[in-house]
Amino acid sequence: MRTRPLKVALLGCGVVGSEVARIMTTHADDLAARIGAPVELAGVAVRRPDKVREGIDPALVTTDATALVKRGDLDVVVEVIGGIEPARTLITTAFEHGASVVSANKALLAQDGAALHAAAEEHGRDLYYEAAVAGAIPLIRPLRESLAGDKVNRVLGIVNGTTNFILDKMDSTGAGYQEALDEATALGYAEADPTADVEGFDAAAKAAILAGIAFHTRVRLDDVYREGMTEVTAADFASAKEMGCTIKLLAICERAADGASVTARVHPAMIPLSHPLASVRGAYNAVFVESDAAGQLMFYGPGAGGSPTASAVLGDLVAVCRNRLSGATGPGESAYAALPVSPMGDVVTRYHISLDVADKPGVLAQVATVFAEHGVSIDTVRQQGKDGEASLVVVTHRASDAALHGTVEALRKLDTVRGVASIMRVEGE
Amino acid sequence: MRTRPLKVALLGCGVVGSEVARIMTTHADDLAARIGAPVELAGVAVRRPDKVREGIDPALVTTDATALVKRGDLDVVVEVIGGIEPARTLITTAFEHGASVVSANKALLAQDGAALHAAAEEHGRDLYYEAAVAGAIPLIRPLRESLAGDKVNRVLGIVNGTTNFILDKMDSTGAGYQEALDEATALGYAEADPTADVEGFDAAAKAAILAGIAFHTRVRLDDVYREGMTEVTAADFASAKEMGCTIKLLAICERAADGASVTARVHPAMIPLSHPLASVRGAYNAVFVESDAAGQLMFYGPGAGGSPTASAVLGDLVAVCRNRLSGATGPGESAYAALPVSPMGDVVTRYHISLDVADKPGVLAQVATVFAEHGVSIDTVRQQGKDGEASLVVVTHRASDAALHGTVEALRKLDTVRGVASIMRVEGE
Ligand SMILES: NC(=O)c1ccc[n+]([C@@H]2O[C@H](COP(=O)([O-])OP(=O)(O)OC[C@H]3O[C@@H](n4cnc5c(N)ncnc54)[C@H](OP(=O)(O)O)[C@@H]3O)[C@@H](O)[C@H]2O)c1
Ligand SMILES: NC(=O)c1ccc[n+]([C@@H]2O[C@H](COP(=O)([O-])OP(=O)(O)OC[C@H]3O[C@@H](n4cnc5c(N)ncnc54)[C@H](OP(=O)(O)O)[C@@H]3O)[C@@H](O)[C@H]2O)c1
Repeated sequence: MRTRPLKVALLGCGVVGSEVARIMTTHADDLAARIGAPVELAGVAVRRPDKVREGIDPALVTTDATALVKRGDLDVVVEVIGGIEPARTLITTAFEHGASVVSANKALLAQDGAALHAAAEEHGRDLYYEAAVAGAIPLIRPLRESLAGDKVNRVLGIVNGTTNFILDKMDSTGAGYQEALDEATALGYAEADPTADVEGFDAAAKAAILAGIAFHTRVRLDDVYREGMTEVTAADFASAKEMGCTIKLLAICERAADGASVTARVHPAMIPLSHPLASVRGAYNAVFVESDAAGQLMFYGPGAGGSPTASAVLGDLVAVCRNRLSGATGPGESAYAALPVSPMGDVVTRYHISLDVADKPGVLAQVATVFAEHGVSIDTVRQQGKDGEASLVVVTHRASDAALHGTVEALRKLDTVRGVASIMRVEGE
Repeated sequence: MRTRPLKVALLGCGVVGSEVARIMTTHADDLAARIGAPVELAGVAVRRPDKVREGIDPALVTTDATALVKRGDLDVVVEVIGGIEPARTLITTAFEHGASVVSANKALLAQDGAALHAAAEEHGRDLYYEAAVAGAIPLIRPLRESLAGDKVNRVLGIVNGTTNFILDKMDSTGAGYQEALDEATALGYAEADPTADVEGFDAAAKAAILAGIAFHTRVRLDDVYREGMTEVTAADFASAKEMGCTIKLLAICERAADGASVTARVHPAMIPLSHPLASVRGAYNAVFVESDAAGQLMFYGPGAGGSPTASAVLGDLVAVCRNRLSGATGPGESAYAALPVSPMGDVVTRYHISLDVADKPGVLAQVATVFAEHGVSIDTVRQQGKDGEASLVVVTHRASDAALHGTVEALRKLDTVRGVASIMRVEGE
């Protein structure tokens, strides 16, 4: 084994960073044996220098992250600050000064992954980010390496623990969205400002990263259709139950049937209770991958938290350090397929639509005609009426999102349709 | 991209090999893009040269596998013959002549993994074998790379599809072992001679491989305790149901509580219906991994079959080819921890024991005394009697296998104990 240590700088020492530092210390011998050389914590950049950080030598702590990444003697920079800046500039500066980078930053990767990969390649360095998607669950590496000889057609998953916790609560207790969110906040599963989670931004970033790797195509955050889960109601869960379904916030990346384009989207959807994703509880994550040769694979585990995320960061750290020692780099960006990313209108799936309608003869015929005119074929209709008011629940066969939305607009114009109570996609069948 | 192709020889062109060849042809462009150079099928070794093999140029086919691996111009040899010889000699010869090796051969890896790794290292070549464990499911790479910065404590899984199919049938239809086996054979899930599967040899080989990688310790097939599932009865399933459990053939690799030794074993066991492994149906495989930092991860998918297994082989092929191009090698054997592998007697778990006893007063007291004398603490006892005969079902707390077997021997000597109807371990709680 080489005795001169590999030098690692840690940018950020919060929930994830402090666990990375802790494991680097407590598991130092194992890491050295697995890498083939010891690793040394060469510096830790933070915002608040005076905060007491257990197990971290205060002499290593700095607020000048830029000076740290410019030292020139670093082998690896671990970026666990989060957000776009200063993380982006620090990462590119690290490459310029000869370091490889491990990051957990999904927001940055989803927005600027291509540029960061290009910087890594220009300087002959690695950029690894297993922790950016689904925390501890190995997903980037299996997609990028294990399935490198296969053709991935679909990635379907629960990639945000906060929203899964909330939806699971709503499902199991009948609670409304706000009540479930309050509980998630009280238990530390939701942040004070939960927007990134509940509006689907976090899941959309992960969808962009997964789609890019799965389809060997650049997919940016802006390419991902995004719908949050703040409008899911207890009534939606009741409807889902009647259909033998539950509701999950899903990230879905698909290759079109003709193989010539891809889509990526995040939205709440009904899935059958028999689907393995339906039984993913609490803040856990799980991702289904469907490919030509392998068939259906599922990966399940804790999607967040300091130590699970640190596990993923450290796995990358070991790989990147081994690459440093052998003078090689791991697989970089693979975007050769360059498939077009189609808009949401092109997505084909099934829909569950609840309509409030007038309770008089002929309404169903009228509604059915509108579906037919838009080429959306109906699977089942359920009609419930009382006191001159009625509701119609329509479940469609597979249709394009554009056709479905055309249908809904036309339905809204019917005199007999008082309102569209909810529209929800049905997935996983 | 490099235009000179990488040369790949295929040893074996059966269920797996023919799919490897097919995908190498149909996905040639994708493979070339992902590797950075085209791959060329340079030769195919088989036993029966005259068999028609769709899509394979007959000029490539040979029965002289030895001459093929000695060609000297091969970059990668894919071994999908199976068994110990000639596979072992062919693989070492391949290394000697400069090729890296991808294999799906669990039997060989479990028996001679250390020697093969040593040969690979001596010649500066790669030995990859993702397909050897759980078919298409990425498991070797996640354990070896993604969790390289973590400490794995337990691997618990269903790694044999044939036996899972049989047990699932018995569970869902109430069929006996023979009836379920016959159906598995008729449907092609079991081979004409099912010994390797139903006696647990196949699962034991996989357990040895998984334990070795998870614990950075050499674990050979002989180190794995092995019990088949041919004696599992419909009555066992009925008992399991009463406990809210089902029965699975599990491969279990564990680090002892003090961290100083490991165990590996394969046997049928009851697991609670609420455990995710309980709902693994048919011929699917699933593996739980528990580690210090990541917590509980699960990997699920098709554990066998030509094309799923080929997916895993091709993922390795891409990795090994990339390594060839960069002049590096991937992670080799990691056995630095060199932990002792403890015998089955040291394993600590829970037990479900059915006893046929005389239906008279004092029997329970006698039986309970025997358990107490052996230090095995009882969790629950259920007594059922009719016509002077009775059965006692005892579920224990955690105890060592040695203590449990001491208890059972002593029970057999009691006059009031007519027989021990079954002993089954209870896992996953
Ligand atoms: N938490 C999770 O479960 C999880 C899961 C997966 C991925 N991630 C990702 O991991 C990254 C880190 O998340 P986290 O939860 O660990 O965040 P966090 O707890 O907020 O920690 C952020 C750290 O960055 C430091 N920092 C902030 N601005 C800085 C600046 N300008 N210069 C230097 N240091 C600065 C902070 O310093 P102070 O300590 O002085 O405040 C803190 O140590 C994010 O990209 C996140 O998306 C997190
Ligand atoms: N099948 C699965 O689902 C699966 C899953 C995981 C791992 N594996 C592993 O993959 C390997 C291959 O399995 P398989 O199911 O593909 O086996 P298979 O269908 O029996 O094919 C074996 C191939 O090896 C050839 N062969 C046998 N002896 C040979 C020799 N002495 N020299 C040259 N060629 C020889 C056979 O030639 P002929 O074609 O002329 O008979 C045949 O093409 C095994 O290690 C197995 O454990 C299989």
